[in-house]
Amino acid sequence: MNIHDKRTPLSVTTGPIGKSRKLYSSPEGRPDIRVPYREIALDPSSGEAPLRVYDPSGPYGCENFTPDLSAGLPAARPWLATRAGLEAYQGRAVKPEDNGFAEGERLVPPCPAERKLYRAAGAAPVTQLEFARAGIVTEEMIYVAHRENLCRERALDAAKERIADGESFGADIPEFVTPEFVRSEIARGRAIIPANINHPELEPVIIGRNFLVKVNANIGNSAVTSSVAEEVEKMVWASRWGADTVMDLSTGRNIHNIRDWIIRNASVPIGTVPIYQALEKVGGDALKLDWEVFKDTLIEQAEQGVDYFTIHAGVRLAFVPLTANRVTGIVSRGGSIMARWCLSKHKESFLYERFDEICDIMRKYDVSFSLGDGLRPGSNADANDAAQFAELETLGELTKIAWEKGCQVMIEGPGHVPMHKIKANMDKQLKACGEAPFYTLGPLVTDIAPGYDHITSGIGAAMIGWFGTAMLCYVTPKEHLGLPDRDDVKTGVITYRIAAHAADLAKGHPAARERDDAMSRARFDFRWNDQFEIGLDPDTARQYHDETMPKEAHKVAHFCSMCGPKFCSMQITRDLREEAKEIEAREKGMAEKAEEFMEKGAQIYVRG
Amino acid sequence: MNIHDKRTPLSVTTGPIGKSRKLYSSPEGRPDIRVPYREIALDPSSGEAPLRVYDPSGPYGCENFTPDLSAGLPAARPWLATRAGLEAYQGRAVKPEDNGFAEGERLVPPCPAERKLYRAAGAAPVTQLEFARAGIVTEEMIYVAHRENLCRERALDAAKERIADGESFGADIPEFVTPEFVRSEIARGRAIIPANINHPELEPVIIGRNFLVKVNANIGNSAVTSSVAEEVEKMVWASRWGADTVMDLSTGRNIHNIRDWIIRNASVPIGTVPIYQALEKVGGDALKLDWEVFKDTLIEQAEQGVDYFTIHAGVRLAFVPLTANRVTGIVSRGGSIMARWCLSKHKESFLYERFDEICDIMRKYDVSFSLGDGLRPGSNADANDAAQFAELETLGELTKIAWEKGCQVMIEGPGHVPMHKIKANMDKQLKACGEAPFYTLGPLVTDIAPGYDHITSGIGAAMIGWFGTAMLCYVTPKEHLGLPDRDDVKTGVITYRIAAHAADLAKGHPAARERDDAMSRARFDFRWNDQFEIGLDPDTARQYHDETMPKEAHKVAHFCSMCGPKFCSMQITRDLREEAKEIEAREKGMAEKAEEFMEKGAQIYVRG
Repeated sequence: MNIHDKRTPLSVTTGPIGKSRKLYSSPEGRPDIRVPYREIALDPSSGEAPLRVYDPSGPYGCENFTPDLSAGLPAARPWLATRAGLEAYQGRAVKPEDNGFAEGERLVPPCPAERKLYRAAGAAPVTQLEFARAGIVTEEMIYVAHRENLCRERALDAAKERIADGESFGADIPEFVTPEFVRSEIARGRAIIPANINHPELEPVIIGRNFLVKVNANIGNSAVTSSVAEEVEKMVWASRWGADTVMDLSTGRNIHNIRDWIIRNASVPIGTVPIYQALEKVGGDALKLDWEVFKDTLIEQAEQGVDYFTIHAGVRLAFVPLTANRVTGIVSRGGSIMARWCLSKHKESFLYERFDEICDIMRKYDVSFSLGDGLRPGSNADANDAAQFAELETLGELTKIAWEKGCQVMIEGPGHVPMHKIKANMDKQLKACGEAPFYTLGPLVTDIAPGYDHITSGIGAAMIGWFGTAMLCYVTPKEHLGLPDRDDVKTGVITYRIAAHAADLAKGHPAARERDDAMSRARFDFRWNDQFEIGLDPDTARQYHDETMPKEAHKVAHFCSMCGPKFCSMQITRDLREEAKEIEAREKGMAEKAEEFMEKGAQIYVRG
Repeated sequence: MNIHDKRTPLSVTTGPIGKSRKLYSSPEGRPDIRVPYREIALDPSSGEAPLRVYDPSGPYGCENFTPDLSAGLPAARPWLATRAGLEAYQGRAVKPEDNGFAEGERLVPPCPAERKLYRAAGAAPVTQLEFARAGIVTEEMIYVAHRENLCRERALDAAKERIADGESFGADIPEFVTPEFVRSEIARGRAIIPANINHPELEPVIIGRNFLVKVNANIGNSAVTSSVAEEVEKMVWASRWGADTVMDLSTGRNIHNIRDWIIRNASVPIGTVPIYQALEKVGGDALKLDWEVFKDTLIEQAEQGVDYFTIHAGVRLAFVPLTANRVTGIVSRGGSIMARWCLSKHKESFLYERFDEICDIMRKYDVSFSLGDGLRPGSNADANDAAQFAELETLGELTKIAWEKGCQVMIEGPGHVPMHKIKANMDKQLKACGEAPFYTLGPLVTDIAPGYDHITSGIGAAMIGWFGTAMLCYVTPKEHLGLPDRDDVKTGVITYRIAAHAADLAKGHPAARERDDAMSRARFDFRWNDQFEIGLDPDTARQYHDETMPKEAHKVAHFCSMCGPKFCSMQITRDLREEAKEIEAREKGMAEKAEEFMEKGAQIYVRG
């Protein structure tokens, strides 16, 4: 990686993960749809085909990709340029307040990458939901079907052997994903493909309970420490380790231009919380917020290509007093901004009152809703309380409105919840919100471990993912303490990939165990290099191994440093199998002899 | 810390954790029973009493303790010296093979700390189980009752406010622990106090489903890297961060003498796997193992003061073929040693056949059984299979025999289990083993993350702890890759403290939320120092915070680096509360005016 000064971002992390290869595959007859995956070659001694794994790293994960941040990524969705129902138009002009009035040296230059700007031309389908309802299978649907299947093909071959397994709590994961299945799931609101028509660089991702569990990572500039290159690199770095979507939670100066650089270079869906920028535009005073500035911000960000917006429209005036006796009050930034607005003005939230108009704007660009949980609990003490569930019911109402308006919707969830209260969150969400995808932060199952909240929340995330949550928002070790650095982001993403994969396994995803079993076979065969490569983080695994056993010869050693050669249980098992075979052969030999003996009349002395 | 050369261990880590104080408290009328705890003073602005937390750090956690490793720790159980039913005797002489025939420079000197050696004198009660059944409440029972209650006293005060909460899956955790409750739980085999009569340094710990969930950490020398000081320090270090018991899994030379150093300086129960040393004594050849060498090893280690033995007596000849088609075969070292012995000789395991005699030896010293799961799965693919559950049924049989013989018993469990198969492990164990405490390793809920197996297993550990597991054996980030260093041990222990605490919370332990709520209040009040101190790892929390906001003034800042001052949701909530109070006051004022108005006859114009 090469981080330059903030005005000239030139380089980010590239190249394959470990010794794997990034490849693309197209569904039959659709060479224009190029679906990425990662292939991990295994040692020839294994006799196994390479392992295919899902990969959100974008072109950055390819061997010979040289990014040009100023030009942005090539279009991964070339079909958008000719899609019916869209019209090109002249967008909103950038205003000084979009960048926090940054000027001169302090102004980050806009990203020079130019894209034609589109919006819905009329009432013809433009969102994935509208297409789905109209019975139309989009390229995005074909794309995600192929993408979700990549790791399933081998499993299908082995289907006869596969034991149906898992407890899905009502999820209905198919053996094989067809584009038609994707369409039907989107049509009934049970899955979304967040994909703004102005984000052609996007590699489509599906978020829904009947698909692989996804992971989101948050990034954001901070007033002092960040440069543009760092911001783009954060997104690249997070998706490299497995973030399926990235939320840009930036505040402060240059927010518009930095977002431009990020989106033009993002192959993952980008989410934002527009109220943050709206608040910047009114100088940070929540009471100055109004519909006009918010509407302006929605259009600004929709035109840039943001794929989903967190909208805290469920924080209603009547719910604010329900938080009065909480231990930690309101902990969502968006939630507290809106609560303050409502309470001080003693007026209903303009987000709630103008929800129809918000939908109309978001539909035009197919920006998906991520209905924010502004009243989520900030501590185990406040979990599952009246405020939280009142808001959830409102999010259910709003979901139906958004669906009527043609918008895709997912629902945000907590937060801080002890283990025994997690399932109720999932059950209530499914019921209140008509099975719209749930997107939760953790939840943290205890509050006593600052510095380890990737773990306290990874426990809750794995469980709620199993119960049906479609996307898990990561938490880093710095949560509650400070801003995550590169290592923290990587640790957070990998922890959440663990949680998401554990959930897929437990739900009985038909192909989830492929990778686990490949790892287990590599363990049993002492294929050390394969173990490193199959894992989520080959670099760390290799490094940990080499700390104790650094020599190259140790990579084929039939033991490891834990037990040493004399005590190796796996080696003993292998010996056992050999012995068992010998014993079996011997016994078989004896049995054959016995049979022969009986056939010959059971005479002790055979006449010569 | 100060690690000297291997022949002269002089120093280990001492001093309080963070800014807390290690204190002792005695039950009324029993000044001889000194029960440790840790007290965390909170900022005076909080108006809160200091927080008391459970503490296994031993005297090492005290402010002014200077350890003398050669003398060993002072007796924490002085009453043993006068306990009826015990006889002092001359123990077994140390043999060259006990230390792997190490000689001269290579021989670690024995620990000079001398202790009188005891054993059961006859049929009078000697184990905690025998006392409990005889209706006798021992000092150990009083000790653990007081210890478990420390964090409950305040909860009791607040009992009226406390909402009954949690799902205990049949566990029956009392509001307050009486010594009689402890006795009854031990009498029915549902809890154990592993406490060898030759380990007077021990601070008693209770392990059972109706008590706080406990954590074990494994340590062990390795042929090359370890010295005596390092071994003692590993134990001290692990218990400092929260290990309630420590297993010494050493192999190789000097195993006897190193164990001596460890036990004489251990305030936590020490467990071992005697078959490891027995195998050393026969030169590492499993086929040379026999009852005599094993028996000799049991006596040797019982006399040293080991508190619990892992005995793999459930690995029966008939079960070995059940592992033949597994993906990872047998992964327990003890299990594979016994499987090899059984299969090669085609004989039933001598551990199974001599189980009565093993009980007789262990009873004499009150060494608790940890019945080993030699056939536990080594991968998600092998979880809950016929081999695993056949062994579990056998462990149930053996539990009943051990109980008849007066021995305390816990049962070891897996291992590698996907989330949806965890509960079946707990349910089957409770049923098969008559509710004897379950003691599991993890389980790891996926196999794809070498380098992060503290997390993959921490997820499973939290869940199985919630379901009823009494003690969780930790896993470090180095699992499957190499030997853990200090940082790995700390990370492993803290991850498992998170899992254990999350389980206590979810079970509805009456006092578990005390610490979470204290943390949450500190968060809401921006008491940064309190947040660090209340957490499991004050040093790391403080360091993470200071990376972004280093100044002392920031420790009282009413915001943090995540949102900055303008966006702080907690600050907004505080403001909201103030505003709400004002509004309430204003409205109350108006109401009072209205009332006055009505009282005066609702006349618009009051005559002057």
